[in-house]
Amino acid sequence: MVKKPADSLIVMTELVLPNDTNVFGNLMGGRLMYWMDIAAALSAQKHSNAPVVTASVDNISFLNAIKLGNAVHIEARVTRAFNSSMEVFLDVWGEDLVTQQKYRSNTAYYTFVALDEHSRPKAAQPIEPETADDVERYNGALRRRQLRLILGGKMKPDDAKELKELFEKG
Amino acid sequence: MVKKPADSLIVMTELVLPNDTNVFGNLMGGRLMYWMDIAAALSAQKHSNAPVVTASVDNISFLNAIKLGNAVHIEARVTRAFNSSMEVFLDVWGEDLVTQQKYRSNTAYYTFVALDEHSRPKAAQPIEPETADDVERYNGALRRRQLRLILGGKMKPDDAKELKELFEKG
Amino acid sequence: MVKKPADSLIVMTELVLPNDTNVFGNLMGGRLMYWMDIAAALSAQKHSNAPVVTASVDNISFLNAIKLGNAVHIEARVTRAFNSSMEVFLDVWGEDLVTQQKYRSNTAYYTFVALDEHSRPKAAQPIEPETADDVERYNGALRRRQLRLILGGKMKPDDAKELKELFEKG
Amino acid sequence: MVKKPADSLIVMTELVLPNDTNVFGNLMGGRLMYWMDIAAALSAQKHSNAPVVTASVDNISFLNAIKLGNAVHIEARVTRAFNSSMEVFLDVWGEDLVTQQKYRSNTAYYTFVALDEHSRPKAAQPIEPETADDVERYNGALRRRQLRLILGGKMKPDDAKELKELFEKG
Amino acid sequence: MVKKPADSLIVMTELVLPNDTNVFGNLMGGRLMYWMDIAAALSAQKHSNAPVVTASVDNISFLNAIKLGNAVHIEARVTRAFNSSMEVFLDVWGEDLVTQQKYRSNTAYYTFVALDEHSRPKAAQPIEPETADDVERYNGALRRRQLRLILGGKMKPDDAKELKELFEKG
Amino acid sequence: MVKKPADSLIVMTELVLPNDTNVFGNLMGGRLMYWMDIAAALSAQKHSNAPVVTASVDNISFLNAIKLGNAVHIEARVTRAFNSSMEVFLDVWGEDLVTQQKYRSNTAYYTFVALDEHSRPKAAQPIEPETADDVERYNGALRRRQLRLILGGKMKPDDAKELKELFEKG
Repeated sequence: MVKKPADSLIVMTELVLPNDTNVFGNLMGGRLMYWMDIAAALSAQKHSNAPVVTASVDNISFLNAIKLGNAVHIEARVTRAFNSSMEVFLDVWGEDLVTQQKYRSNTAYYTFVALDEHSRPKAAQPIEPETADDVERYNGALRRRQLRLILGGKMKPDDAKELKELFEKG
Repeated sequence: MVKKPADSLIVMTELVLPNDTNVFGNLMGGRLMYWMDIAAALSAQKHSNAPVVTASVDNISFLNAIKLGNAVHIEARVTRAFNSSMEVFLDVWGEDLVTQQKYRSNTAYYTFVALDEHSRPKAAQPIEPETADDVERYNGALRRRQLRLILGGKMKPDDAKELKELFEKG
Repeated sequence: MVKKPADSLIVMTELVLPNDTNVFGNLMGGRLMYWMDIAAALSAQKHSNAPVVTASVDNISFLNAIKLGNAVHIEARVTRAFNSSMEVFLDVWGEDLVTQQKYRSNTAYYTFVALDEHSRPKAAQPIEPETADDVERYNGALRRRQLRLILGGKMKPDDAKELKELFEKG
Repeated sequence: MVKKPADSLIVMTELVLPNDTNVFGNLMGGRLMYWMDIAAALSAQKHSNAPVVTASVDNISFLNAIKLGNAVHIEARVTRAFNSSMEVFLDVWGEDLVTQQKYRSNTAYYTFVALDEHSRPKAAQPIEPETADDVERYNGALRRRQLRLILGGKMKPDDAKELKELFEKG
Repeated sequence: MVKKPADSLIVMTELVLPNDTNVFGNLMGGRLMYWMDIAAALSAQKHSNAPVVTASVDNISFLNAIKLGNAVHIEARVTRAFNSSMEVFLDVWGEDLVTQQKYRSNTAYYTFVALDEHSRPKAAQPIEPETADDVERYNGALRRRQLRLILGGKMKPDDAKELKELFEKG
Repeated sequence: MVKKPADSLIVMTELVLPNDTNVFGNLMGGRLMYWMDIAAALSAQKHSNAPVVTASVDNISFLNAIKLGNAVHIEARVTRAFNSSMEVFLDVWGEDLVTQQKYRSNTAYYTFVALDEHSRPKAAQPIEPETADDVERYNGALRRRQLRLILGGKMKPDDAKELKELFEKG
């Protein structure tokens, strides 16, 4: 049975408590990345049916501060599986349940490696994109992977065919 | 606009970490009730658009232990609003993402009171049940409320009309 | 040696810290139920001299909010042992040590099952009530147990002899 | 009304959880001193009916390791009040509720200063020792205070009359 | 007085406790990013002498798992200040103090915005690189900033002059 | 290779968060002693290359309160090794990174015992003091050890030769 991104969906809701906040009463970025890591890890486990470890995190920009007492909503789903890694897409927003305001926090990509019983990387089964968003994220995954490899010093920029097009085409 | 139970749905997913477990490596009941309280409070806030405080918790039976490293899924939604309180239904299950097993933990009812800016109880707007489950929980809410009042010493068993029928009919 | 409720007494005192509170600066119900679960589990262990797991929690009504910086006092003792379960009574109050005010929070009943080395339920030794309060709680335990079984769908209301009397006598 | 040490008694019971332990599965000393600080602060508040801050901690020797899953019992009571500080005596032991073993962890003295509404030190009311243990701790408090002042560089050893006798008499 | 990267150095050491680990007994990536966020925020505060909020996090690759009971070492220092943001470089490694093994975990760049008393972005004072490493990170900061802007949809790849060279030169 | 105090240096920086504070918004003494215990334990491990347990803590006086949002700096290094124990010196100060104020919190001595694979005390290798401060702490360690033994009831004041001189010379 081929799995789809929706099969690995994890929905997490958290409440921002005092100890999660900075002096402005806003959720600290590090605390949010902690919750995102757990949501994404559960999603990667759901896809691979194996325990996983965090391999990398892509660039994250925090758009709006999430306030003390507000809800944090995180949705995580696997976008694509490579040989031994999976990319997970995260969509994060805040919600003031009293004023009924919802506001974007960030989107992010985390990658995970599934491990077998000897703690060795295990091939993750392929995924089949379903919706238009799924397809777009599935295709973009190649480019993001090249960027990760270049930034990690494991690929030369010249060999990143898909990523180069981005700069050549503008 | 009349609200429905689905409008107050909160979906929470947590990972069982070492400090959440007893010596058997199982999630402690108290830690689970803590998460349930937060999920239910967020749901009650979502319905009332006001801050809330926990008023009571109904009888909870824990059916299956949730294991270290497993996921905890909690779904909360408001079932009915009384003068100054709301009843929230919680459905809780565990999931072993590696073996793909899902198992029931418990269902529960928490009640909350919404407060206004002076910290005084505030009337919660009524709710309109939608699905068959919604209707059943909406109707049962009356009986559960009578039981709460009797157990809290605020109603005589003889006055609990709906609840008495349960014992008379068998 | 027959044990008495006093032999399983656990006295717990906690301080309400910022992260334990809601936006009103009051102790969250879930955090309190977490502490109560630990106090009650220690009491059940003290009676059974075996590790225990939480089986159920009876209806709890929270009477007064416990404030940030106040003390939380919890007293737990076993009231009665059944075949494989023990009922623990909890008495919880808050205290403002500066103004010297003590105020009730709630009373509650948690039940636990003791487990043997194979994680199988283990018979808990009987208990002998000593004081008038002990005797009243010992006798009421039967009625509360029937209510738990009915609410858990394991007993028909008609078979709950002791509980039925409550409604018939009014 | 003159207060006695028993009037400030705080009884605290905690359960050793995984995150409280070192690699040997024993309670870390720092985690225990954290709990002791809270118990002692509550006791000092109970005596002074004012918020307090920790001023100092005397030498503590840890006798026996408290094991994961065991109970920690802490008893704290004020022994003596000086101008602006109070000394609190702590008695700490572990208990394996399964094997019914109780074992000493340590005894300790913490001192606190009560503060008024302007955060300035406030005189704590005197205390009247009651039992033989109370009297012994009340008398020893003078000697311990001199040792604190010498170690803090605020008194010359030669001026510590009560403490000097300890060395002269041997 | 012009500040140098060394003036904002923050050195943090943490111990990996059970609750920080996944089922393999390794530090979870999210927990590490939480500590890194705090170290980097303190460094940005030290440079700007103002409270700060996390604006973004660059791609992070986790090289080696940090084990339960091992030490985590984090060094953070500001590399460059832009109009209203600062880039902080983080160097993270693990250490097994028993076997005396040190191993790399990751390097990372976090960016922060300093806020004034009205919570509005505040210009951070410039920084003067000192060592060869400082200079290299100072220069690279421009390229990394362009990548952040492109990934955040705020700059067209064609306008990222410094970054484009990376692909053209290979 | 003979080790020096500098070889066991551990530098720890922490941020004071809401849950670490008392009602005055100041870091609680117990929370600070928890961090100090971890820093000191890592230092003792670094010297002995073995897991360690906290044996004792010497008198600590807290000089200035560390404020919410401020940084806590802890430096720990081994001062001297005895048969089976090591003494660790801790220097602790707070820092308001916005106003650029640094202020002393306290200095302290913790002692640790290194354990072998059978959890039995293991001889720690000797240490060679290097700087003038190292030498002073190395020499004072003997006197502090005698005080610990006397306070722990394991030595008669009359046998504490080095400590007695302190009182005789004044």
